[in-house]
Amino acid sequence: MSNDKTAITPTRAQDFPEWYQQVVRAADMAENSETRGCMVIKPWGYGIWELIQQQLDRRFKATGHQNAYFPLLIPLSYLEKEAEHAEGFATECAVVTHHRLEAQKDEVTGKTRMIPTGELAEPYVIRPTSETIIGAAFARWVQSYRDLPLLINQWANVMRWEMRPRLFLRTAEFLWQEGHTAHETMDEAIVETRMIHGLYEEFLRDHLAIPVIPGEKTENERFPGADMTLTVEAMVQDRKAIQAGTSHYLGQNFSKAQDISFTGRDGTIQHAHTTSWGVSTRMIGTLIMAHADDDGLVLPPRVATQQIVITPVTPKEDTRDAVLASCQALASTLRNQSFHGEPLRVHVDTRDINGGVKKWEWIKKGVPVRIEIGPRDIETRKVCLQRRDQAVTAKEFADKEDFIQRAADILQEIHDSLLAKATTFRDENITPCDSIEAFHAHWGQDNPGWLITPWAGSPEQEDELSGQHKISIRCLPLDKQDEPDAPCVLTGVPTRGRAIWGRSY
Amino acid sequence: MSNDKTAITPTRAQDFPEWYQQVVRAADMAENSETRGCMVIKPWGYGIWELIQQQLDRRFKATGHQNAYFPLLIPLSYLEKEAEHAEGFATECAVVTHHRLEAQKDEVTGKTRMIPTGELAEPYVIRPTSETIIGAAFARWVQSYRDLPLLINQWANVMRWEMRPRLFLRTAEFLWQEGHTAHETMDEAIVETRMIHGLYEEFLRDHLAIPVIPGEKTENERFPGADMTLTVEAMVQDRKAIQAGTSHYLGQNFSKAQDISFTGRDGTIQHAHTTSWGVSTRMIGTLIMAHADDDGLVLPPRVATQQIVITPVTPKEDTRDAVLASCQALASTLRNQSFHGEPLRVHVDTRDINGGVKKWEWIKKGVPVRIEIGPRDIETRKVCLQRRDQAVTAKEFADKEDFIQRAADILQEIHDSLLAKATTFRDENITPCDSIEAFHAHWGQDNPGWLITPWAGSPEQEDELSGQHKISIRCLPLDKQDEPDAPCVLTGVPTRGRAIWGRSY
Repeated sequence: MSNDKTAITPTRAQDFPEWYQQVVRAADMAENSETRGCMVIKPWGYGIWELIQQQLDRRFKATGHQNAYFPLLIPLSYLEKEAEHAEGFATECAVVTHHRLEAQKDEVTGKTRMIPTGELAEPYVIRPTSETIIGAAFARWVQSYRDLPLLINQWANVMRWEMRPRLFLRTAEFLWQEGHTAHETMDEAIVETRMIHGLYEEFLRDHLAIPVIPGEKTENERFPGADMTLTVEAMVQDRKAIQAGTSHYLGQNFSKAQDISFTGRDGTIQHAHTTSWGVSTRMIGTLIMAHADDDGLVLPPRVATQQIVITPVTPKEDTRDAVLASCQALASTLRNQSFHGEPLRVHVDTRDINGGVKKWEWIKKGVPVRIEIGPRDIETRKVCLQRRDQAVTAKEFADKEDFIQRAADILQEIHDSLLAKATTFRDENITPCDSIEAFHAHWGQDNPGWLITPWAGSPEQEDELSGQHKISIRCLPLDKQDEPDAPCVLTGVPTRGRAIWGRSY
Repeated sequence: MSNDKTAITPTRAQDFPEWYQQVVRAADMAENSETRGCMVIKPWGYGIWELIQQQLDRRFKATGHQNAYFPLLIPLSYLEKEAEHAEGFATECAVVTHHRLEAQKDEVTGKTRMIPTGELAEPYVIRPTSETIIGAAFARWVQSYRDLPLLINQWANVMRWEMRPRLFLRTAEFLWQEGHTAHETMDEAIVETRMIHGLYEEFLRDHLAIPVIPGEKTENERFPGADMTLTVEAMVQDRKAIQAGTSHYLGQNFSKAQDISFTGRDGTIQHAHTTSWGVSTRMIGTLIMAHADDDGLVLPPRVATQQIVITPVTPKEDTRDAVLASCQALASTLRNQSFHGEPLRVHVDTRDINGGVKKWEWIKKGVPVRIEIGPRDIETRKVCLQRRDQAVTAKEFADKEDFIQRAADILQEIHDSLLAKATTFRDENITPCDSIEAFHAHWGQDNPGWLITPWAGSPEQEDELSGQHKISIRCLPLDKQDEPDAPCVLTGVPTRGRAIWGRSY
């Protein structure tokens, strides 16, 4: 393949949304299914999710959380208890109304059809999120302040009926973790909400090489039923925003609706302060859009299903066994090295197929490091090293022993270079804006970046601007709420706060 | 608590089903929810499932399987394709018929109610098992014999509407793994089916200390749509059977119904031979019923959420810090030891509550090893060691250094003693029977054990005997199908095969 051809058609510049679909397909990560809006996550994609799960789970446990599991189906009456919450999810709930099927023979075709029967007195919805059903359990579990804090996490599937699904980013069913905690005081609950927010920011940066902007959502953009929603916002390569994780302080809204109450230290009955927080398989879509290029997926090393793929180059039959043995020996040695406390994930591709096909397959799958070993390399004790963060044509003939010593460092360098590149891109595409004319003009561009503006408008004014340009306030960035006074971009009212605006997925 | 009192009321002898519920409750493992037939799995129970998952998952990957994830909802038309399969699950399917809710205000009460709306053209069922939806994906993925074998596993929730739910053993929603594989030939598919059957047997024996009888199900008891169902059958303490895991050879039934076809080595189009196999959270119910006693849960060490709990005994304030420090130091040292390749799971219970309450809590939670350290033990360098597989009153004052060296061995001894006890119990309660009079009389007893009989009856005769005594053929044990000829217990026809009969959960 020559330099001006790319493994993915179309390129990012030609058609970003279609490029995304083709990257997912070329890496064999997922595909659409016949169940409306639902995807099949294939092994290469699911492997990334397993690594995200393990690494996040370790962090949740280290911060005192325990896993549990709650029912998939939520009685309708639960959902009705918190009005805002019910309204927020009503338009996208899958509803279970029957509990049996009956075979009916079609008189004309002779075929048997299954008909729903056994209608339920009270229908259930498939959880779009579990505040209400976990809240009902918390109400049973909490009696005294001694039972608090309650720090629970669930790994589960949830369902939100999506009208415009997109693999990983927006699917009717998705996999996620949802943390749910209950606390004695508002202060403690807010400390928890912020701690998890920080954990998500770190995780995205240190594991997925995605630099996010941590901030608070405006009232308009809050989780239905929350008093405060914190978010981490990622910018991907078409300059759109992706909300990569949220952490909510729910106040006493759910605890009052569901009676999560306890006898306090002073003997009075009080309602708990609750939080919830989650990240989902959407993060996989985010990492694709953040890092992949016109040759396919580029995996951050910590969540790479395979970190190093070794390909034996065996032009002649008589040296074949020696080359294979050398590759397997190298793989074993590398698997005894570790990267961030986990053994290196190394694969030897022994398939008897064309070498070029093999090479491009691993490029498209985004493997961070590719190694080739041929007959001559055995004598010279060299390996041919190629890195996914460098040009496809770039290669280094490295001393084998030296490579073994450096392998983990090379993975870290790749992580760092992905993070640096994404950070530069993000920073170049967030523009300060203090004039409403410039604001309006900005959104007429193709793939406009984000704007950061002084903002003191009302929720209604925010809604109007958002609707006009198909944008939203992505967040009020945490480190930009105590700036020198400046006039609000719309109203001119002086404010110390700043808002980031952008298009989003 | 004196010796004749038990921590669990009623005892196993008094009321086994109620004893079971009370063990689950006392160990704080799970509880019923308001969603019909569905349970909440609490952290102590879910921790066991996480360990089962990790340990099984390692074995599946070591035998070449990869994880993937498929949609929760199955189009009704998929289910209709394999007739036996559809019929087998029709009476227990949760059906999704709508995809929105609409708020309606009740004119009288003024309350808002949510009403299902957005009726679906084709309803979906929540997967009771995924043969049909995974088969549809396999049909897309398999083109040539080179694409085979396809070795996939899924960790997921499934739903079967249960009329008589029981925590862990039989719940409307449960968690499981389901393996699905496709092969070029019948032989290869049968090798896979048997390999997994053996893996389940070993897992139950080596990880859960449950000695199972491996065997084949009769035609009557097969999985709907299978040509052969292999099972591992556990006997629990009321002598009932629990089917603890099954592995099915599905022949070409599903591949023909769903067109999983490929171009073979000879250029002809052929249908794949498929298998499926699974174990579920039911295993947790099985391990409770197999090992727990009248003082509560008894956990096999490999799946114990905590393996060793250390309790500081701090009668006086002035030695309190030293005792706590000694306990934490011991815990750290132990966590650097490993048991079957995993670091020991050690907890220090520093709660400021009554020592007797603490002790009984850990007994009821089934922790394999309890350690107490008091002020005097620090000087003497001793620990007070208590084992859950021994009498509650039994204790050993062990030299601390010696205990550290022996800790993993002690856990293995506990595993071995649980397994030996369960094996003896099982063997004492399987009775050979060759007379139909003795057969009929046997089932009139309270909690009858299993019978093993020569059997050559028809499916109809099997059905009749089963219905008469509320029993079933649990399996045709693998190692008893080539016995000396003996007359079938019902028909008198000579046979070399033997069947095991029993009551079951």
